[in-house]
Amino acid sequence: MATKKELPIILITNDDDITSPGIRSLVEAVKDLGRVVVVAPDKPQSGMGHAITIGSPLRMNKMNLFGDIEAWQTSGTPVDCVKLAVDKILHRKPDICLSGINHGANHSINVIYSGTMSAAMEASIEGIPSIGFSLLDYRYDADFEPSKHFVRILVTEILKQKKIDKHLLLNVNIPAVPLKKIKGLKLCKQAYAKYDESFDERMDPQGKKYFWLTGEFKNHDKSKDTDVWALKNNYVSVVPIQFDLTNYTLKKQLEKNKLFK
Amino acid sequence: MATKKELPIILITNDDDITSPGIRSLVEAVKDLGRVVVVAPDKPQSGMGHAITIGSPLRMNKMNLFGDIEAWQTSGTPVDCVKLAVDKILHRKPDICLSGINHGANHSINVIYSGTMSAAMEASIEGIPSIGFSLLDYRYDADFEPSKHFVRILVTEILKQKKIDKHLLLNVNIPAVPLKKIKGLKLCKQAYAKYDESFDERMDPQGKKYFWLTGEFKNHDKSKDTDVWALKNNYVSVVPIQFDLTNYTLKKQLEKNKLFK
Repeated sequence: MATKKELPIILITNDDDITSPGIRSLVEAVKDLGRVVVVAPDKPQSGMGHAITIGSPLRMNKMNLFGDIEAWQTSGTPVDCVKLAVDKILHRKPDICLSGINHGANHSINVIYSGTMSAAMEASIEGIPSIGFSLLDYRYDADFEPSKHFVRILVTEILKQKKIDKHLLLNVNIPAVPLKKIKGLKLCKQAYAKYDESFDERMDPQGKKYFWLTGEFKNHDKSKDTDVWALKNNYVSVVPIQFDLTNYTLKKQLEKNKLFK
Repeated sequence: MATKKELPIILITNDDDITSPGIRSLVEAVKDLGRVVVVAPDKPQSGMGHAITIGSPLRMNKMNLFGDIEAWQTSGTPVDCVKLAVDKILHRKPDICLSGINHGANHSINVIYSGTMSAAMEASIEGIPSIGFSLLDYRYDADFEPSKHFVRILVTEILKQKKIDKHLLLNVNIPAVPLKKIKGLKLCKQAYAKYDESFDERMDPQGKKYFWLTGEFKNHDKSKDTDVWALKNNYVSVVPIQFDLTNYTLKKQLEKNKLFK
């Protein structure tokens, strides 16, 4: 963490694009807690997962969007934004990276598809404590005031920690209800809940088929310690996330098989 | 698993595109082990991570590329291919999903950026046992013969299991050495090894800056049970992978903090 003399550097990114109300709310919530620098995509990047741009070059432009706060838009993905911020803008690791506030849920299995969470994960891999925030309201004019309240509580708490796990990574989802209805922050595990997908099959004017992804969200996990349960019960869900994907339980089982050395 | 009368359905996809030698090698390796169906992207999708296409429609075309084997190319990402295959082509879950063989490594942290592994993970989330294969050789004319040998061993073994974990997911990387030099299949954990990225800064003819992602691969994990170690020592690395990203260790630590309910 930064010394008393030095303000902590707070890197902010998102996947909805730099002009979205969600990222503006995030900036407003933390702007007096450190030196805020915004590096975010110039176009929506929802559902980009952990995509990086390897086959084409990236562009970066300084923007005047948040008053006296330094802000850059890039032509890259959320993950590209974090990489560019560290290497080309800050020339050092920030003290914390915040991603969001996403317009829409990123709980349960959605963490894997989420550009918001991938940016946060990229920072965590680089050894930067990181949080992704998502509000369960897809609308452009969603009310981010309750979210800002909890953003501030969490970021203040993490910045004041003297010894912090540099890979700390939290997936925070906020229910779309008024502040007074929210019961607090709840530590959870990722639910096995997902979209049971199907595609809407349509015909174009030339008589050729095309397909739109659609689907129904189903919770296959009935336990009470999941993010889906917490959100249904008006808690802010906080899921600690890791980037080591090794399935140690399965590894142990497979060790019994003679196929492996 | 399929009954004796019914051949198991083997879904094959990749991220390099349907015309790549890697996917052809995968088809050749398993074509007599079941009914093979190929559903793969119509263009390279490397580094796409777990991207899905939500803002635009998808196209799908039947191709004659692999003799009498059913094959479809789609305009989507590797993850889209798995979704389309289950919902619109097979109309059921295949018995196994194979992704690759990727031209280039997907060990260590690369599993997170990899389109090859994301396709396999998507299948695993859907309850389809799944394996992603990658050869440590980026070249178009890489020698896939040693890879085919190990693909066959692993797929045969999994298809013969009577009770299989339906979420089984393996990240398999093959060293780029002749078959006789490969010491066998080694169960490993994901190494904390990554590209220490930097961007190559250039100037376009109009005098505007642009940036190309580049970087040096560094292994920060010196233990001998990692995929990076196994590959360096001429083993085929096999890392069991999970899609529950909850960091239970960090969750336990954070439970001591009064901030959380």
